[in-house]
Amino acid sequence: MSKHLQHDLDRLKKEILAMGALVEEAINRAIASLTNRDAALASQVLEGDDAIDRKEVEVEDMCLKMLALHQPVAGDLRYIIAVLKVNNDLERMGDLAQNIAERALFLATHEPIEVDLDFSRMVELVRRMVGQSLDALVNQDPVLARRVCMQDDEVDRLQRNMFEVLQALMTKDPRTVERAVQMLSVSRHLERIADSATNVAEDIVFMVEGDIIRHRADPARNPPRVRR
Amino acid sequence: MSKHLQHDLDRLKKEILAMGALVEEAINRAIASLTNRDAALASQVLEGDDAIDRKEVEVEDMCLKMLALHQPVAGDLRYIIAVLKVNNDLERMGDLAQNIAERALFLATHEPIEVDLDFSRMVELVRRMVGQSLDALVNQDPVLARRVCMQDDEVDRLQRNMFEVLQALMTKDPRTVERAVQMLSVSRHLERIADSATNVAEDIVFMVEGDIIRHRADPARNPPRVRR
Repeated sequence: MSKHLQHDLDRLKKEILAMGALVEEAINRAIASLTNRDAALASQVLEGDDAIDRKEVEVEDMCLKMLALHQPVAGDLRYIIAVLKVNNDLERMGDLAQNIAERALFLATHEPIEVDLDFSRMVELVRRMVGQSLDALVNQDPVLARRVCMQDDEVDRLQRNMFEVLQALMTKDPRTVERAVQMLSVSRHLERIADSATNVAEDIVFMVEGDIIRHRADPARNPPRVRR
Repeated sequence: MSKHLQHDLDRLKKEILAMGALVEEAINRAIASLTNRDAALASQVLEGDDAIDRKEVEVEDMCLKMLALHQPVAGDLRYIIAVLKVNNDLERMGDLAQNIAERALFLATHEPIEVDLDFSRMVELVRRMVGQSLDALVNQDPVLARRVCMQDDEVDRLQRNMFEVLQALMTKDPRTVERAVQMLSVSRHLERIADSATNVAEDIVFMVEGDIIRHRADPARNPPRVRR
C-alpha cells in the first residue's frame, strides 16, 4: 500500500470516529433532555445538527476522493465503502436525536403524564447499542458488532410494550393524547436509533469479514459467540 | 472505457431499475390495500419483501465487484457510488411499504374511522414523487430530480395537518385511539417514503453533476428551474 493511501486511511478513520462522537453526544443529550425535562439541553441538541450534517458531507467527500485517487482494492476498498455506509447511518441517527430533542422540548414545557412507564430500560439498551457499535467501529471488532445486532429484538419488544401502555392511557384519559403521542414518537425514534446502530454493526462485519449479514435469519446473522 | 466495464454498467443499470420497479410496485400496492381496505393485497405486499431484500444484496454485490475489478474513475465511479446509495434508499422505501401494508391489514379488519380526513392528496403526492424519482434515475435527469426535492415540503405540511386532525379525533372520541394511532403511523411512513424519494433524487443530481445538494438551504438546493 502506498504511504499516501495509508495516510489518507488514517485520516478517514479519525474523521468517521469524530462523526461518531458527535452523534453519540447528540443522542445522549437528547435522552438526558427528555429524562430530566431539560428544555435548554434539548435546544442545544437542535443547534448541533448543522455540525453533524457538515461532517457527514466532509466524510463522504473524503471517501469519494480516496476512491478516485487511490483506486484501492480488497480490504481497503471494503473499508472505504463501509465508512460511506456507516457515515450515512450516523447522520440518520443524528436526525433521530434531533427529533427526540424536539419532543423533549414539548414535554418539558407540559405537565408530565402520570403513567407507570419505564423508559429507562429501553433508553439504557439503546445507549449501550450506540456505544458498542462505535466501539466496534474504533476497534474493527466483528464480535462486538454481532453482539449489537443481537440486542435489536429486545428493543423492538420494549417499543411494542410502550406502544400498548400509551395507547391504553390515551383511551382511558383523552386529556393525555397530545403528550402520549409525543411519547409514542420518542419511543419510535429510540427504536429507529437502535435499528441504525444495528446497520452500523452490520457494516462493520462486512468491513472486517467481507460478509453481508443483513436480511439474514437470526441464526446465520448471529453465529455462536466466539470467545476472545 | 473498456467494453467489459460498459457491459457491466449496462447490467447494473438494468438491475437498479428492476429494484426500483419492485419497490414502486410494493408502495403502490400498499397504498391501494389501505385505500381499498384490501387485506389480501396487503398480505401480498408483506410476502414480496424478501424479493426486495435479495435484490438489494445483489445490486450492492455487483457494485462492489465492479469497483474492485474495473477501478473506475470520474463519472463511472460516481455512478456506481450513486447506485449504491439509491439501492439503500430503495430498500428502505420497500420496508416502509411493508409497514404501511401491516397497518392496512389492521385497518381493513376494523370498522373505518368516521373522520373528515383526506388522505388522497398526500397519497397522490407521494406516489408522484416516487414515480418521478425513478424516472429521473432511468433518464439520469437532474432537472426532474430537483423537482422531486421541491415537493417534499408540501408532504411535510400535509403530514403535520394529518397529525392535528387525528390527535383531535382521539381526544374527542377515545374509542378511535387504536385505529387513529395506526393511521398516524401510515401518514408518518408516507412522509418517510417521500423523504427517501428525495434522497434518491439528491443522489441522482450528484450522479450527473457531481454536486452534493443535501443539507443545503432550499434556494441553493433548488436553483431556478431550467426550461427544457
